[in-house]
Amino acid sequence: MESWIIAPITAIASIIVSFYLYIYINRQDSGTAKMSEIAASIKEGSNAFLRREYRILAIFVVTVAMLIAIFLPSPIWISDKPLDNLSMSIAYIFGASFSGLAGYLGMDVATRANVKTANAAKEGLNKAFSIGFRGGAVMGLSVVGFSLLGISIVYGVTKNPDLVLGFSFGASALALFAKAGGGIYTKTADISADLVGKVELNIPEDDPRNPAVIADNVGDNVGDVAGMGADLADSYIASIVAVMILGQVLGFIEIPLVFAGLGIIASIVGVATIRVGKEGDPGRALNLGTYLTCIIYAVLTYLASTYFGYNLHIWGAVLVGLIAGVIIGITSDYFTSIDRMPTRKTAETSLSGAALNIITGFSYGLYSVFPSLVGIGIASLVSYYLCYQIGIGFGLETEYALFGVGMAAMGMLSVVGMIVASDAYGPIVDNAKGIAEQSGLEEEVVDITDKLDAAGNTAKAITKGFAIGAAGLTVLALLAAFNTTAKEAGVNVVFDLMDPVVLLGIFIGIAIPSVFAAMLMLGVGKNANRMIEEVRRQFDEIPGLREGREGVKPDYARCVDIATVGALRELLPASVFAIVATLAVGFVGGIKALGGYLSGSIFCGLLFALLMSNSGGLWDNAKKYIESGAFGGKGSEAHKAAVVGDTVGDPFKDTSGPSLNTLITVMSLVSTLFAVLIAKYNLLSLL
Amino acid sequence: MESWIIAPITAIASIIVSFYLYIYINRQDSGTAKMSEIAASIKEGSNAFLRREYRILAIFVVTVAMLIAIFLPSPIWISDKPLDNLSMSIAYIFGASFSGLAGYLGMDVATRANVKTANAAKEGLNKAFSIGFRGGAVMGLSVVGFSLLGISIVYGVTKNPDLVLGFSFGASALALFAKAGGGIYTKTADISADLVGKVELNIPEDDPRNPAVIADNVGDNVGDVAGMGADLADSYIASIVAVMILGQVLGFIEIPLVFAGLGIIASIVGVATIRVGKEGDPGRALNLGTYLTCIIYAVLTYLASTYFGYNLHIWGAVLVGLIAGVIIGITSDYFTSIDRMPTRKTAETSLSGAALNIITGFSYGLYSVFPSLVGIGIASLVSYYLCYQIGIGFGLETEYALFGVGMAAMGMLSVVGMIVASDAYGPIVDNAKGIAEQSGLEEEVVDITDKLDAAGNTAKAITKGFAIGAAGLTVLALLAAFNTTAKEAGVNVVFDLMDPVVLLGIFIGIAIPSVFAAMLMLGVGKNANRMIEEVRRQFDEIPGLREGREGVKPDYARCVDIATVGALRELLPASVFAIVATLAVGFVGGIKALGGYLSGSIFCGLLFALLMSNSGGLWDNAKKYIESGAFGGKGSEAHKAAVVGDTVGDPFKDTSGPSLNTLITVMSLVSTLFAVLIAKYNLLSLL
Repeated sequence: MESWIIAPITAIASIIVSFYLYIYINRQDSGTAKMSEIAASIKEGSNAFLRREYRILAIFVVTVAMLIAIFLPSPIWISDKPLDNLSMSIAYIFGASFSGLAGYLGMDVATRANVKTANAAKEGLNKAFSIGFRGGAVMGLSVVGFSLLGISIVYGVTKNPDLVLGFSFGASALALFAKAGGGIYTKTADISADLVGKVELNIPEDDPRNPAVIADNVGDNVGDVAGMGADLADSYIASIVAVMILGQVLGFIEIPLVFAGLGIIASIVGVATIRVGKEGDPGRALNLGTYLTCIIYAVLTYLASTYFGYNLHIWGAVLVGLIAGVIIGITSDYFTSIDRMPTRKTAETSLSGAALNIITGFSYGLYSVFPSLVGIGIASLVSYYLCYQIGIGFGLETEYALFGVGMAAMGMLSVVGMIVASDAYGPIVDNAKGIAEQSGLEEEVVDITDKLDAAGNTAKAITKGFAIGAAGLTVLALLAAFNTTAKEAGVNVVFDLMDPVVLLGIFIGIAIPSVFAAMLMLGVGKNANRMIEEVRRQFDEIPGLREGREGVKPDYARCVDIATVGALRELLPASVFAIVATLAVGFVGGIKALGGYLSGSIFCGLLFALLMSNSGGLWDNAKKYIESGAFGGKGSEAHKAAVVGDTVGDPFKDTSGPSLNTLITVMSLVSTLFAVLIAKYNLLSLL
Repeated sequence: MESWIIAPITAIASIIVSFYLYIYINRQDSGTAKMSEIAASIKEGSNAFLRREYRILAIFVVTVAMLIAIFLPSPIWISDKPLDNLSMSIAYIFGASFSGLAGYLGMDVATRANVKTANAAKEGLNKAFSIGFRGGAVMGLSVVGFSLLGISIVYGVTKNPDLVLGFSFGASALALFAKAGGGIYTKTADISADLVGKVELNIPEDDPRNPAVIADNVGDNVGDVAGMGADLADSYIASIVAVMILGQVLGFIEIPLVFAGLGIIASIVGVATIRVGKEGDPGRALNLGTYLTCIIYAVLTYLASTYFGYNLHIWGAVLVGLIAGVIIGITSDYFTSIDRMPTRKTAETSLSGAALNIITGFSYGLYSVFPSLVGIGIASLVSYYLCYQIGIGFGLETEYALFGVGMAAMGMLSVVGMIVASDAYGPIVDNAKGIAEQSGLEEEVVDITDKLDAAGNTAKAITKGFAIGAAGLTVLALLAAFNTTAKEAGVNVVFDLMDPVVLLGIFIGIAIPSVFAAMLMLGVGKNANRMIEEVRRQFDEIPGLREGREGVKPDYARCVDIATVGALRELLPASVFAIVATLAVGFVGGIKALGGYLSGSIFCGLLFALLMSNSGGLWDNAKKYIESGAFGGKGSEAHKAAVVGDTVGDPFKDTSGPSLNTLITVMSLVSTLFAVLIAKYNLLSLL
């Protein structure tokens, strides 16, 4: 019996647990007819979006699959193993399908759990929290379950980590589109609903008169649930694959699979034990659950290491990754928390207007990148040297060292089941709050959903920090995997910063995340402009809507439609641009240029991801702080200024920022997949 | 007779011409008593700021000079040439003094030329333009004159390029403080004047009732004239020094001096021939002047290369730099020009509020970094390979190649006399406009100053692009010089991207520009808050001020004082932080970490410099476009939204953005100066 069999077993266990939770949620009551009706609109809108998105993506996936079948791992006309091309192509489709499926399932359960959470809030915080969190857990456990099962199947059948790379590419490519499309959708709706509703007409958030309100709720599901799940799944898979490739030369392919399996066990235990006592604090419960999962994971991997006789330095690298993840999460929390100085100062400057609110929030966002980046740097340095020492005497110092960096990335990501669960909890309770307000539930019930929602925001800051930190280490591992693959192809290059070809690559690379982020944000801007006009039109033209006359309803479906069409139109160019630019740099400048390009995009990608996520979160909470009564409270001039900051932060934190992780993962995977081909055929080598 | 004697001769010629222009300006009429009075307030405020700033900086300079005398080039107790320490220390003081002097002279003439330009506007555009531009030319020619004279003296006396490095460090350190302090001052005043005056009370810009209006005018002088001049002087000197160090091993120390001298000749000719015909376009005249200077420079350096027998590939590298500078300038112009799509689109989105204006402008700013960064990358690649070929056969390929990159940087910067002249023209005519309005000159006269001011903005975009591009190539040359110096110290390192120590350096390095920018912007925010309160207080407490009753005057001096004290308080921490962080990384992590750190800071420094300058310029012009009547014109909702964008852009484009150039230059110089010491003593090598 091989040890890696732990992976598929725990994966299947994870899927079973998530199925059990799914049934539990389905059994709950959906409340009044009005509530069910609203929930149905949200569900319908979400499904419609995903259907249309997947239809477009299917064309893309099939096209790429055909290209893979022809060109990868090596062009079919010169390959000595043409069957590998077919396998790679199938693995790719498999990866894309699994990623799509995980996104769909998560969204499906989220759009069921939202209304049930709202209804359970009538019975108190405890029950409602439990349903909301279990909804998130279905997403979390199915994401890791399907991901690890997929990897196990591809690896079990082919025993070839390079083909697992194809699986990973499929998952990541889909994640990139899902994240970008969902991110544009959600912020289009959010900004439009806020600008016309809150700012112009001064009606509350989630007011049923607002034509954009359903689209806004749909956005939470397609952006935050389906998108975020796909994003973390893609980092998770990529980190495992990177370590498998790095471990290949050391005969360590199976260690990452074993450790991933243990991560699932830790996540299941974490999910099972989480609860909020009477009068408990749900935010604290979520964070405690995350910490508990980390501790369980550390213990399990230690025991496994002794049992299987793995060198404890490898375990040390995992631990370093885990600790770094927690530290980065705490940093993000500091810079975005409603109780801390940065948010409060930013709220205070709102008294002098929107411009100073934005300057201040942006500045704290700039500060916030420092500890996280240094943390990632130190984690990679420590894990490198820990494992470097294993290799001394075997002449394999570098190989072990890079493997160590990969294991640190895995360490961060191994608890991803729990992370996704906490994360998906956010949009579910956000939706629950919306449904409670729109269906006119009592004040106390709405208050409970409000409390649940606030906890979601706290948890989100930490999980986002985790996600970005993990992506950072993962792409470093992928960079190393890219280097290893290039070496195997006979190109033994050093990425020397003083080499002008590497430098040119870096200069192009650092500009890519900027351009990508800009494309997505302009997409949001364009779309929001269209939708704002529509919302204004409805308020102007539908008699009685503004005053909320009985029986008058806005045309929700039109807003859902505008957001859907717009998001689908804007999602392709940015994502295709990133992939094409990567290939162009490779085939023109060769491996060295591509190495520089990847590094540059990683550096600036991480920087912007942190900057945008943190400043966005900070602006959001600065507004909430004012709404809680500070500096004049709701409706004051300071509040108006803070709303502008929050709106600027929306595409920062929910569209561009989190997409950048996925972007750099996809770019790294594309590079690694094409490394052999690029090494052979590139313009610069022909000159 | 040695060829490099061209440098001091042309430098002295440049100083003489600028002195002649200074006398010309002094001879012009200052207009009415009211105009003289306003001009005197501005002059007094500017002088007061500079005096206080220089007093603080003197303490800093003397402290550092003493440290240099003890530690550099090598600690006095182990040095075999302790006299070098004294020389280095003197060269440093010399550099700081020259830089300070150039800043002072430029500001002095600017605060004289402003009122004379305003007065000359009565006689028409032609005369006014001529005075405004010549005022800028005094600054431009004295900056290059003093800089090159200083270099020539230090080199002539010591014949040691390493000591010229001390001179360069002195100039750069002063520039960093001048840029940061001036930048904070100018935007504190600008934001406060705008927010209370334009936004809250709806009175025009430069309205004499506004207590912050004199401080605002002072800010133009201390920020844009003294600061910008110091900034470009520092890049200019650093590029020459870097090339001297890189050329040392090739026996080419004098080529950069010759080429710099020719650049001065080209600038003098450019300055002398510039004019705007009747009904001419002053913006076009400025740009034509810049292009003409470039052409003259290209011809002169070609002739000199043939005459002195320099390899024409070196000339080619210079040409590549020059062309890249122009292209980057044109790109900046595209993204910020009032006639182009990005600005107009941003203006249009203002219809949907401030948030969308900011998202859109920021997005175009993110786009704008792409062509410039790629341009810098290509320029360095081409110049590298051009000169690489000279070295083939001598075993000096890399040495020649890096020398080539340095010459490309020099190519961009050689016309800096003309660039600074166009640039300093901006704040002079801006001031002239302010004086014309405050002293109640006729409508047509104010219109003429308005036209002159608009031309200043056009010219500014191009010169800023030049400045940033040049800084990019200069720091690359400095990075190479750092590497060369480290090699001479016996540390032959490769900055390998896969080396975790290099990586850690990079991760810290990329965060430094963010933190630095944040510190400056928060400084502006804090200061502006204080000043806004004071302005509001004066409007509330001084009877008749709001209504503009005859004889009622605000307390200008108090606002000037607040801006001064605040800027001085905020300028030290950021600048000292940058220097200390550099030394800390070096002495802890060693040469490899420092190399990574420098590279990281260069990459992200350039990126943020471009992003902030361009988006800031764009927001400014989007507002101007609306003010010209589009989308509802002045006072409309769109205009209010655009004003928020403009205010956010203020510290972007005039405080943080341009300071980042200087920051990375100073960091590179510090690293190069300390390279030998760090190679010997660092924590990592002790472990």
